[in-house]
Amino acid sequence: MKRFLALFFLTSLIAMTQTFHTAADEGLWLFNNPPRKHLKEKHNFDPPASWYDHLQKSSVRFNSGGSGSFVSADGLVMTNHHVGLGALQKLSSKGKDYVKDGFYAKTLAEEFKAVDEELNVLMEIVDVTEQVKAAVKPDMKADKAFEARRGVIARIEAESQEKTGLRSNVVTLYQGGQYHLYRFKRYTDVRLVFAPEQQIAFYGGDPDNFAYPRYDLDACFFRVYENGKPAKIDHYLKWSKNGISENELVFVSGHPGHTDRLNTVADLEYLRDIGYPFLMQRLNRLEVMLSVYSQRGEEFERKSKDFLFSIANSRKARMGGLAGLQDPAMMAKKVAQEKALRDAVAKRDDLKEVADAWSIIAKVQNVRKNNIKRYIIFEGGAGFNTLLFGTARTLVRAADEYPKPNEKRLTEYGESDKRSLQMRLFSKRPIYKDFELAKFADSLSWMCEIVGYNDPLVKKILAGKSPNERAAEILNGTKLFDVAERQKLFKGGKKAITASKDAMIQLARLVDAESRRVRKVLESQLEEPKRQAYDKIAKAKFAVEGTDNYPDATFTLRLSFGTCKGYVENGQKIPFQTTFQGLYAKAKEQNNKMPYEIPQRWMARKDKLNLKTPFNFVCTADIIGGNSGSPVVNRAGELVGLIFDGNIQSLVWDFAYTDEQARAVSVSSQAIPEALRAVYDASPLAEELVTGTRK
Amino acid sequence: MKRFLALFFLTSLIAMTQTFHTAADEGLWLFNNPPRKHLKEKHNFDPPASWYDHLQKSSVRFNSGGSGSFVSADGLVMTNHHVGLGALQKLSSKGKDYVKDGFYAKTLAEEFKAVDEELNVLMEIVDVTEQVKAAVKPDMKADKAFEARRGVIARIEAESQEKTGLRSNVVTLYQGGQYHLYRFKRYTDVRLVFAPEQQIAFYGGDPDNFAYPRYDLDACFFRVYENGKPAKIDHYLKWSKNGISENELVFVSGHPGHTDRLNTVADLEYLRDIGYPFLMQRLNRLEVMLSVYSQRGEEFERKSKDFLFSIANSRKARMGGLAGLQDPAMMAKKVAQEKALRDAVAKRDDLKEVADAWSIIAKVQNVRKNNIKRYIIFEGGAGFNTLLFGTARTLVRAADEYPKPNEKRLTEYGESDKRSLQMRLFSKRPIYKDFELAKFADSLSWMCEIVGYNDPLVKKILAGKSPNERAAEILNGTKLFDVAERQKLFKGGKKAITASKDAMIQLARLVDAESRRVRKVLESQLEEPKRQAYDKIAKAKFAVEGTDNYPDATFTLRLSFGTCKGYVENGQKIPFQTTFQGLYAKAKEQNNKMPYEIPQRWMARKDKLNLKTPFNFVCTADIIGGNSGSPVVNRAGELVGLIFDGNIQSLVWDFAYTDEQARAVSVSSQAIPEALRAVYDASPLAEELVTGTRK
Repeated sequence: MKRFLALFFLTSLIAMTQTFHTAADEGLWLFNNPPRKHLKEKHNFDPPASWYDHLQKSSVRFNSGGSGSFVSADGLVMTNHHVGLGALQKLSSKGKDYVKDGFYAKTLAEEFKAVDEELNVLMEIVDVTEQVKAAVKPDMKADKAFEARRGVIARIEAESQEKTGLRSNVVTLYQGGQYHLYRFKRYTDVRLVFAPEQQIAFYGGDPDNFAYPRYDLDACFFRVYENGKPAKIDHYLKWSKNGISENELVFVSGHPGHTDRLNTVADLEYLRDIGYPFLMQRLNRLEVMLSVYSQRGEEFERKSKDFLFSIANSRKARMGGLAGLQDPAMMAKKVAQEKALRDAVAKRDDLKEVADAWSIIAKVQNVRKNNIKRYIIFEGGAGFNTLLFGTARTLVRAADEYPKPNEKRLTEYGESDKRSLQMRLFSKRPIYKDFELAKFADSLSWMCEIVGYNDPLVKKILAGKSPNERAAEILNGTKLFDVAERQKLFKGGKKAITASKDAMIQLARLVDAESRRVRKVLESQLEEPKRQAYDKIAKAKFAVEGTDNYPDATFTLRLSFGTCKGYVENGQKIPFQTTFQGLYAKAKEQNNKMPYEIPQRWMARKDKLNLKTPFNFVCTADIIGGNSGSPVVNRAGELVGLIFDGNIQSLVWDFAYTDEQARAVSVSSQAIPEALRAVYDASPLAEELVTGTRK
Repeated sequence: MKRFLALFFLTSLIAMTQTFHTAADEGLWLFNNPPRKHLKEKHNFDPPASWYDHLQKSSVRFNSGGSGSFVSADGLVMTNHHVGLGALQKLSSKGKDYVKDGFYAKTLAEEFKAVDEELNVLMEIVDVTEQVKAAVKPDMKADKAFEARRGVIARIEAESQEKTGLRSNVVTLYQGGQYHLYRFKRYTDVRLVFAPEQQIAFYGGDPDNFAYPRYDLDACFFRVYENGKPAKIDHYLKWSKNGISENELVFVSGHPGHTDRLNTVADLEYLRDIGYPFLMQRLNRLEVMLSVYSQRGEEFERKSKDFLFSIANSRKARMGGLAGLQDPAMMAKKVAQEKALRDAVAKRDDLKEVADAWSIIAKVQNVRKNNIKRYIIFEGGAGFNTLLFGTARTLVRAADEYPKPNEKRLTEYGESDKRSLQMRLFSKRPIYKDFELAKFADSLSWMCEIVGYNDPLVKKILAGKSPNERAAEILNGTKLFDVAERQKLFKGGKKAITASKDAMIQLARLVDAESRRVRKVLESQLEEPKRQAYDKIAKAKFAVEGTDNYPDATFTLRLSFGTCKGYVENGQKIPFQTTFQGLYAKAKEQNNKMPYEIPQRWMARKDKLNLKTPFNFVCTADIIGGNSGSPVVNRAGELVGLIFDGNIQSLVWDFAYTDEQARAVSVSSQAIPEALRAVYDASPLAEELVTGTRK
């Protein structure tokens, strides 16, 4: 499931929107505005505020992109294997492939510190809408308005952090309709406890990704530490031994990354005609390049595994999204909804100022069309596909940005994110020169294709060499593989950067002016006019349709709900849950051939497993990429499942919720302890889950 | 090795050029103008005309794209496994995978008739340059000139065929500098005799494709029949028992498909900036789509195997070509050569009319840029990626074209090609509906992206449906799976086509007008001006540089020569040949994991093999895609090898020959009988090879 949000954010730059009309079990609800009315009316469920508060504080955000939950008082965190994949990859080395073989720490001493892993828990939400909006004066030009808003947000964040010591981020909701300050408790000592083999976590591989029925143990466990000891956790989810029943009401608490549900038609057409096709072109290219690299041998496969997975996963998700955009029925609905709202606006004197919002959004698409490729190549860094370019850029920009007042900096250099930024910058993750070269050379070649071989900046970047030669030259001329070198340059600031002869630093400096220029064009000529126009549309929608609704996803904590039920596909009834028995049947049907091969351990322990144990199930809860690893809980707030995917029909949820066939897919709570005991000899961990404490 | 020429032809439409300056062992020589001078001067070799004639008539063209040779008096033909791959695929069915498992007919009765396979042997070449050129008058406009030339060529072909009974094609050489009539003997009863498992034929898979050292038994054998009996062959190659020695002179006789060696710089820049990037985008997309399909299970893998191979193969070849185009050193040479010729032209009064040729070619690139995508989608059929669209188009156009006088028809409907066209049209190759749907739906979606979702023709094609729905609707609404239905429509002509309610026929009719329109634009506004301009440049080059040279490749029979020698790469000496011993060593180094796994049979028979037997070798002979399956012979005309690949460094041969590292890769003649006897229990076939007759 699509947890890797970064790529996607590049193409759908600043496309946050609002959604209003809810039907069925739709909704990515805010915890400070939960769907109380819907739950009461539809499901006769009306829990106290403490129910919501407990679920909120039991939920965990993986900053690498994904969701999780506390499942014991001793800091145990559950998420998906594919959310932990990056951490597993970073812990692996030649001959030790934790992705392939899995991992289990029998004792605390064996728990492995994950590289770069930062978990955030949302402790508090403060509405700062008035304060943010007051900073932007009506007569301001777009670039000034953009700067003023960025400034006030930076100030609010820094003040909050200073006051509370909590990581503080202002989140833009309803694309400018509201601004909320989120305060997070950070955990940075995160250790790996258990992961199964990828072959059972991702059973069925790419063909079964975003498919159902499924048989995947897509789970892994971390433990957060404070002061060298397992953190003591007040809010954690109790394990349900009985799992779910058909038609049961369930809840999902997680971090949906991005939706485009109430984009205007012009915005959707941009995605259909330009954004998605360009993204697909890039994803296809990367997938082929990485597959080719991976096939060269076992070590190559190991080194490229997580990146290849993330690309293939994005490709499949985006193909589904594009299919939705190319479906005239879906688009016709969007056109009709937009027309209805515009007609309503036209009839109301109090909404006169809203009337031009749609045409403004349509008009600025040209800014995007004309700049998006340069933006993605240069500012997005797609032309420089090596971890070390990201490192070099951060160093170059840190030297420029940190000396500025907080509110004048580029957003990502805000004071409140500084610690997270440094953690990534000084990461000790393994970097393989041959793999960096393969990616970097390919991306330089792609840059030539996309920006143009004779573009003046491209010529300077290549410096008279072929893409292959130039990539090798730069990688041979950089010391940024070495963390100490990065620390030296970071401490040395502007002077050190200016004096540096490091080839990667020089590349980052070379492209910085053009990168900033194109970013500014998009911020002031696309983002700001759109934000103001969407703000108007939001007001109109509140006025016409009411306020009991939810904003588009923003990779912040949301609450969804739904019912556990199957569906009908090609005339066939698809049951709501599968069992271990089904896993073995599926493998037999496929002659036990990859990607349907059952791992050796699962073959050997088959007779120890209760084959009737529920394995995976589906429900109608509204999820999207970023929800991976979200806990599924019942009315009692007990953990009954672990979200890990949506089916093919759910991929259109990027744009519109439906529940005829679209489903979220979870691992059943019953499957996990059963597998831990019977297959992995991990009874102590199973005990910790079901009792809530570590013995 | 890149035998699949069709895709590539689409982007480098009408880009045939001349090449003149030969160095070292360069050259794709015509059999009616062989490199006598070079061979005598450089290699002290001056064989009689009969030597060339024998080699010419022993050489075979596979119309599906590739080369081969007669190797016994009883009609035995040798080619590469990957040239026979299409035939193997077509013979396979559920549970019988000849691609994966190989095939051996112990008796004549077991020899399997290949579907669609047509072999051509070049019997005679006639220079018809004067006759063709005389048809085009100096005052003709481009579209009239194009038609007049097409007309006279069609007439020459038809007359020749009537007179000789041989398939007759006029080939444009030196891009309009010369026109030669080629007369071919056709063999259409082609039966499969032997093929090894793909895993040994393509050992090392994609990572080792276009690489060296290699360990591939990329060979297979067919037999041609006449009147139900093995054909009696006068000209076949004798088998050399001793193979080659280091530094030995060897010859290659085969059908190089396409080169762009003396394109003007403007033509090369088009390929670098537009042609290749667009092709790569398509190949990457197809490779991902086919890989995804293939992974769904063994049957899916079987059904898509040959197409996936051809796409991955093209991708790797074209990546190498693009790397050459993006190499400033390569382009600088081209710029310097062009400048030298233009300077020489400027100084000669007799070449005044040539001066504007380069700027004309530069100018018409815009016609190509503005039309190539529609051309590839509609006329090239890339928007309708199903075998049945090709069938429907042929039926629709046959009904329009065959009633016209021969010289007025679209080229491919010429009288001389009619039998070959019907063979393909009524092919009984298996067609799998689910596979056709996967390809077709994906290509309709791609059409939307490339041509535009709101393009009026695209809208008509989709008819208000999504690409997926529409593809399914059309495939459900066609009977063209059935060969009898195709025959009925073919016989029914225009009336039957017009009346047909078949959804695929209706689609082909719908796009025909626009396809023809864009084709005509390219023919008259790009191809014809380029042909006239290149004709001028050719004259200038003959005048300035002399006439002892060879034209660019045109998938017609050519002679190359070279020496067997290794090279130095990254400071390491790469030996000129490998042995069976090396195969087992390579597998061990790679833990015997795919794509380096040794087939079971080869494991079991290891001790029966003479491990010192030479397996593969390299030489400097000038080859290109289409040469796959070419025989390699020694001075005595004995078969010493079988071309199956070029190394990575040879991929730039599309544009320029070099011999520092670039090499052609062959299977050694010694490896084949040794493997047949020791691994495949195929001693009778080995005997036929070494004795030249079937016992």
